[in-house]
Amino acid sequence: MTSTWLDAIKWDDKGLVPVIAQEKDSGDVLMFAWMNREALQKTAELKRAVYFSRSRNKLWFKGEESGHVQTVHDIRIDCDNDVVLLKVTQEGHEPGIACHTGRHSCFYQRLEGKAWHACEPVLKDPESIYK
Amino acid sequence: MTSTWLDAIKWDDKGLVPVIAQEKDSGDVLMFAWMNREALQKTAELKRAVYFSRSRNKLWFKGEESGHVQTVHDIRIDCDNDVVLLKVTQEGHEPGIACHTGRHSCFYQRLEGKAWHACEPVLKDPESIYK
Repeated sequence: MTSTWLDAIKWDDKGLVPVIAQEKDSGDVLMFAWMNREALQKTAELKRAVYFSRSRNKLWFKGEESGHVQTVHDIRIDCDNDVVLLKVTQEGHEPGIACHTGRHSCFYQRLEGKAWHACEPVLKDPESIYK
Repeated sequence: MTSTWLDAIKWDDKGLVPVIAQEKDSGDVLMFAWMNREALQKTAELKRAVYFSRSRNKLWFKGEESGHVQTVHDIRIDCDNDVVLLKVTQEGHEPGIACHTGRHSCFYQRLEGKAWHACEPVLKDPESIYK
């Protein structure tokens, strides 16, 4: 067992760790997801983001349906060893689409006064992404 | 009750939501923490990051001990309404110190081969931050 770097992670009571995916070149925060041990190991091996889908309860190879793969350049953990930060290139479309709504980033809703407003354009119709 | 924007958030089973703090000017991801409803409401009111400390089980006015306050410029939520992203200015030191280890960002440990390496300098001795 050589993966002592995986043992350094403080997995939560479900065996998961939160993950932030940040676009390497722009610095944009693209999305937030979760990984289990296997997902993080595969991400490091493949240099491609592999998450754990809590709704489907299985590994989620980001882009497996959409083609919107994330190439991973850098894997970091925080001071408490309980959050992962990935620096990625968002592949499959230009500009990159990380969000299932067809937007660049999942964080497209901004608080303005007392309401949330969508402030980023849909780059591609989701129905044409998930056929 | 006017805070319907708070009702839009999908709070987890502990009444919390994960929060990413990103430095506005550099785009650096500084830290990850949690908020409850009151923390997010106060953050929006004060334009200053207020988290919920899970270890101390109470509101955590970021910078209350260290002086390393975060001024909040933008509050966003993701497509699932269950993650918050703050755009902040990290106050109290130049360059900003978000991490309790005295570093700029909490994400200072990088995976290199099969090991984590600290790759960002300590900008201020933590013992002189928390007196």
